[in-house]
This record gives sequence, structure tokens and C-alpha cells, in this order.
Amino acid sequence: MRIRRGRRDAVHHLQPSRGAGAHQDQRAGALAMETISKRSLLAAGLAAGVAGLPRGAFAAQPGRKLGYAILGLGYYATRIIMPRFAECEHSRLAALVSGTPEKLKTYGEQYGIPETHRYSYETFDRIIDNPDVDIVYVITPNSLHRPFTERAARAGKHVMCEKPMANTVADCEAMIAACKKAGRKLMIGYRSRFQAHNIEAIKLVRDGALGPVRTVVTDHGFTIGDPKQWRLNRALAGGGSLMDIGIYSLNAARYLTGEEPVAVNAVESTDRSDPRFGEVEDIINFQLLFPSGATANCVSAYSVNCNRYRVSGPKGWVEIDPATSYQGQAMRAQLGGPPAPREPAPQPKNQFSAQLDHLSECILTGREPIVGGDDGLKDLRVIEAIYRAAREGRTVKL
Amino acid sequence: MRIRRGRRDAVHHLQPSRGAGAHQDQRAGALAMETISKRSLLAAGLAAGVAGLPRGAFAAQPGRKLGYAILGLGYYATRIIMPRFAECEHSRLAALVSGTPEKLKTYGEQYGIPETHRYSYETFDRIIDNPDVDIVYVITPNSLHRPFTERAARAGKHVMCEKPMANTVADCEAMIAACKKAGRKLMIGYRSRFQAHNIEAIKLVRDGALGPVRTVVTDHGFTIGDPKQWRLNRALAGGGSLMDIGIYSLNAARYLTGEEPVAVNAVESTDRSDPRFGEVEDIINFQLLFPSGATANCVSAYSVNCNRYRVSGPKGWVEIDPATSYQGQAMRAQLGGPPAPREPAPQPKNQFSAQLDHLSECILTGREPIVGGDDGLKDLRVIEAIYRAAREGRTVKL
Repeated sequence: MRIRRGRRDAVHHLQPSRGAGAHQDQRAGALAMETISKRSLLAAGLAAGVAGLPRGAFAAQPGRKLGYAILGLGYYATRIIMPRFAECEHSRLAALVSGTPEKLKTYGEQYGIPETHRYSYETFDRIIDNPDVDIVYVITPNSLHRPFTERAARAGKHVMCEKPMANTVADCEAMIAACKKAGRKLMIGYRSRFQAHNIEAIKLVRDGALGPVRTVVTDHGFTIGDPKQWRLNRALAGGGSLMDIGIYSLNAARYLTGEEPVAVNAVESTDRSDPRFGEVEDIINFQLLFPSGATANCVSAYSVNCNRYRVSGPKGWVEIDPATSYQGQAMRAQLGGPPAPREPAPQPKNQFSAQLDHLSECILTGREPIVGGDDGLKDLRVIEAIYRAAREGRTVKL
Repeated sequence: MRIRRGRRDAVHHLQPSRGAGAHQDQRAGALAMETISKRSLLAAGLAAGVAGLPRGAFAAQPGRKLGYAILGLGYYATRIIMPRFAECEHSRLAALVSGTPEKLKTYGEQYGIPETHRYSYETFDRIIDNPDVDIVYVITPNSLHRPFTERAARAGKHVMCEKPMANTVADCEAMIAACKKAGRKLMIGYRSRFQAHNIEAIKLVRDGALGPVRTVVTDHGFTIGDPKQWRLNRALAGGGSLMDIGIYSLNAARYLTGEEPVAVNAVESTDRSDPRFGEVEDIINFQLLFPSGATANCVSAYSVNCNRYRVSGPKGWVEIDPATSYQGQAMRAQLGGPPAPREPAPQPKNQFSAQLDHLSECILTGREPIVGGDDGLKDLRVIEAIYRAAREGRTVKL
């Protein structure tokens, strides 16, 4: 079935993305991830269980729906991802992992997940014995991505991990090594790669419709609220706006150009007297230079709402605004004539279901994800360079 | 009479700005300035006549229309500026200065300028004896701004000078000193400060509608054509895209924030094998940090079409695209609700006539222009810092 995005998306009455531009309500509690007990989660995640060598391996059977365990039952997991299994062809929700018993009960009952398939962070390693689970989708605060990915791999499961892949390059490398050692696939939740407008923009670039890319201008930010949320806690988030929302600007600049940056500038602007920004940065804008000569000017912000990009070459440009939100993408292009709205080629699935199915398909067919651990690692390499450029007041070469 | 901009502008069937976004035709010869003989112009301009102390001073009479001499009869002067005297209240076209006799004849006859009021670059200094001329508007290639401004001041005339004010900070300082010594006013042709949408954006910022400015994102560029044009000649232009079109990004960042930057990053990307870019830069993107913590990400390019800005604060944003073109401005704002088109408060005159009249009014009333030589100098200070930041690969503090 081929559908237009907006319509289908609307069925679920989703809130617009936090980053969807300033027209969203900043509803209290919308970021339900905040309600996770940070202390228990951190302790549980870091105290990785000592599991043995991978077992529970099974032969992927084409046609069968692979089973996902969702690890971390916050807003994104429960409101955005879990409802989208309904539209998956190759993926199903098979298990839940949470530090909050009430959530396991509520969502377990809602989605018909038996108690045997509900895990706490303490019992999570037993998932090695659950053949219904093929993939663990890690949707926790950033600093827990690595330990949970390592535990999932040790349990013989493939891993989908939310962005940012981890807090450091070293963590990313360890995660890649863990999955490689376990013979399991690792994919990062870069859902925009499965979103119709973004696919169209990438296609226009690759088809040469703009000529060689000269500039990418991309802004991602939102006005962050509650100072107590995990995103503003350095131990949990690893950093500020760049880790959470600016990474969309970075990732877009990379997938639009199809290149890796060779030089980075950055400027940070954070009001340290603001109770939200005692530990992490607010604004950190950065510039990238790519080997072809393409450039990117990127905004990363926790104090303004923006979610857009424009990619330009001598022959024209294409822009999406909002670009990487959960829904509501709108595209304009200037390709020879005056700027005009552009409707992308429809995609068979919404970005969330397509992302879930992509990993399943890769497992079933033996391919590698288009956004594997290597892609997450590349973002972290640039993120570390961005922080260094801002800190040292110099262009950092990569 | 209160008019809407677009309507009135259309009367003259103007070409869209070179920088109005990619929808304009890059019509051959549209940049008629190119047809000026560079050699004769440069020689004439630099060989400043030895005029005596200012004389020909007159008491400005309120109500009277001050007389402009247009110096440099290229595209911008003849197609954009000269027709707009018709809508001026305090300004009239009184004299012409050109190195091309045919142009003096053609435009002299068209505008009823007597032969006594037509000057070559060699005879220009005799303008000191022409009481009909109050102001000289210098619309030449950049490197001639200083010598012609100095000669005009020595002839006792006030000066309107096109942007960029000059090629260097030192040149700007000399021009300011020359006009000060002559007791004459100096204004830079930053016409956007008189344009309705830009006025509205500044007002929204100053009124606090966005909260404190956190980010300005502004892109200015066009795909430059003929490699032989003066804009691509370092001796005449002083630099590449930054001097000509990127300066709009810089100036907008300054007038939107109302602040002067304290730190600058920049990255240049120029294909030196491209025959257009043997002498000057193509892309030079820059970042600014302002004392309040406001930031700007700016594009300056000769290989893509763009002309826009968005200024954002925690409470919302306003954007104009195209922003600083000759006509066709379109505004959107996000102020509490979803993003929506916004029509600015109408202004009594188009940006060109308002600019011309502003200097006349300042002369008649003894006020200083809102965009005096000091404003042009401030841009050049940042421009020099931008070039240095790109060259040295470091943050340049101001």
C-alpha cells in the first residue's frame, strides 16, 4: 500500500516532534523519559550483567516477523515507536524492558506482551533464553546506550540503538566491537533516512539536480523545559543540545552531501546562570567543510525552536521545514523555475515502521543497515571535534 | 500616500535582485556595471584631483529638494536608483558623473540633466562650483569608493557611498576623516534598513516579541557569471562574495541583533581552477558571537542563489525570504502559534527612495544617518576578521 505521510501519521494523533518548530506545545510531561528514575537506571545499566558467550542464535527465516524487545519505556518508545509495529511487515513487538514495574504492566497489557517477556534492568540478561526476541531496541538516556547494547549483544540479540549512539567515540567503538564479537547487527535510529521528504532530498542531490552541493544550512533546536530532565544531566546525556538535537543537523549534513567533514569550526553560547544549563551547553553552532568543497552551517540549540535544512548547488536548492520531525514535513525546491512546494515520491511505510523493518530485513537477508554502528561512530567523531573546536577556538581538522 | 511595496515596485518592471534567490534569470548584461572600462575608471578614480578646501557650502533650506550627483552609471545606478527619485520628497537627480560619454548623453537626455551638470571622472572635481549638487552618490567598483568619496568631500559635497564602504578598515577611516574634515555627511547605501519587511523584523526584535535573540541564520549568494566582470577582479572588488553579497548577511546579523560581534569563525571554499575564482573567494561562511550571547550563522557565496534570514529567540522567530533583494520580500513568523505569513506595516516609500531621502533629511535637519560611515566601517572590521579567521583557521576575537 502506498500512502502519503501526513494522513497516515495523523491517525495516531501524535504530538509534533519536540524539534518540529516552535508551533508545538511544550507539554509538561511529554518527555516521559524524564520520569525514569535516573539513579536506578544508571546503576542498572552500568552494572552490566555477566552473561556468557552468545547463545540463543537462530536461523532467520524469511517471511517471519522478527521480535523486538523495547528497552526503556519513555515517551519516544511508548508514544512514537511502539504503535508503529502495526504497520511493519517484518517486525513485531515481542518484549518489554523497563526499570518501572508499572510501565511493564501497563504497556504489557496494552500490547499483549506476556509476563514472561517483560524484563527489569536487573533481569534483562535472561533475554538470552527468549527465542521470541531477535532485536533489542535501546531507547534510554544516552550514557546507557553502550552498556545496554553490550548486554544485548552478549545475549545474542541484534541491536537497534537510539541516537546519539553513545557519549564518546570510544564508547561507539566498544559497541561495534561487542556486536561484531557476538555476530549480531547494530543499527542506529536515524529514522530520517526512511522518511519520504528526506529520501527525496537525498535523491535530488545524488541525481545531480542541484549540481555539486556547495552549501547545506541546517538548524535543529527546541526550547527545553524542566531543568531536572535527563537531557540536561551531563552524566546521563553526555552533553547538551548537540547530543540530542544538533546531531540531526550534523547527520543531515553528512547524508545530504554523502561525505565526511574534514574541518570543523564551532561557537558555543550558553548562559550558565540559567538553571537548565548548569551542566550542558545550550547553543553550539558549527561549520563543516567536506572534501568536495561542500560546506555546512549548522545550528544546535536548546533555546530556540527550529528544524529545517536547505541544500544548495549552482543549479538550485531543496529545503525541508520541518525536516526531521516526527511528522509534518514540508518541502520546497528551486530547480530552474521559481521556488515551489514539492511533494516527494511516496514511501510504502512511515519512517518509524520503515526503520524497524529495515533492521529486520537486513537480518533476514544478511545485508548491513544503511545506518549501522559505523554511521553513529562517524557522527560522534565529528561531535567530539565540534566540542574541541568550540573549546579551543580553532578549526579542528579531521 | 501609504503603499504596499510589491505593487509599487512592479511599476518599474525591475529585474529581481541578483541576490533575490535562484528564481531570477541570470540575464547577460544585467550587471551593466561590468561595461564600465575598468582601466579608465580605475585610473581616473585613483588619480584624485587636487581640489582645495571645501567651498560651495550652502545653507540647507528645509522643504527644498537636495540635488544628487550619481557617480558611476552602471546597472544599479541607472536601472534601480535613478528611476526612484520620482518618488522622493527631499531629493532630486541633479548631475551625472561617468567615464563613458555615451552614457552621460543618454541618461542626461533621459533625465533632463543639462550638459553643464554632466561630468567625466577627469572633470568631476569641478562639481565644487555647482551649487545644484548637494550630494554625490558613489556607485562604482569597490576600490573606487574611497578616492571618489574623498574627492566629493573636497568638493564640499555630502556623500552617499555604496556598500561595501571600501576594501579595508584603513580606507573606511580615511573616508570618515575626509568627510569630517569637510564638514559633510557620509552615508552608506544599506538600503535594507529602509525596506518594510526588514524594518518590521527589527521592530519585532526590539519589541521583545522573540525574547532575547539567540540565533540569526542568514544566507546571501548568487551564481556569478562572466569571469571578466569587476566583481571577480581583486584590485577593483577588494575580495569576492563577502565584499559584494555576503556583506548583506553580516549587516543583517548586526542590525537584527543591534550588537557588534566579539568573536568570528569562518570557512572558505573556493575552486581555484574555476575561471571565475582565480582572484577572489567563492564561498566564505562565517559565524558570529555577540556580547549578549546571540549567535549568527552566515552564508556568503558566489556559487549558489540564496537571500534570506531568520532571527530566533525563545519566544519565536521571524524570517524573510527573499530578505534583501530589490523587491519581492516575503515574511513568515512564528510567534506563539504555528508559523504564518506576516505582512509588515507599510512604509511611505520604497527602500530606494527612502534611502535617498534619508540622507537629504539628515542634511536638512542636522541629524546623522542611521547608516553612516561608522556603520560601513564596522562591517569592514568584521570582514577583515572573517578573512583572517578563514586564513588562520582560528576564532578571531574583536
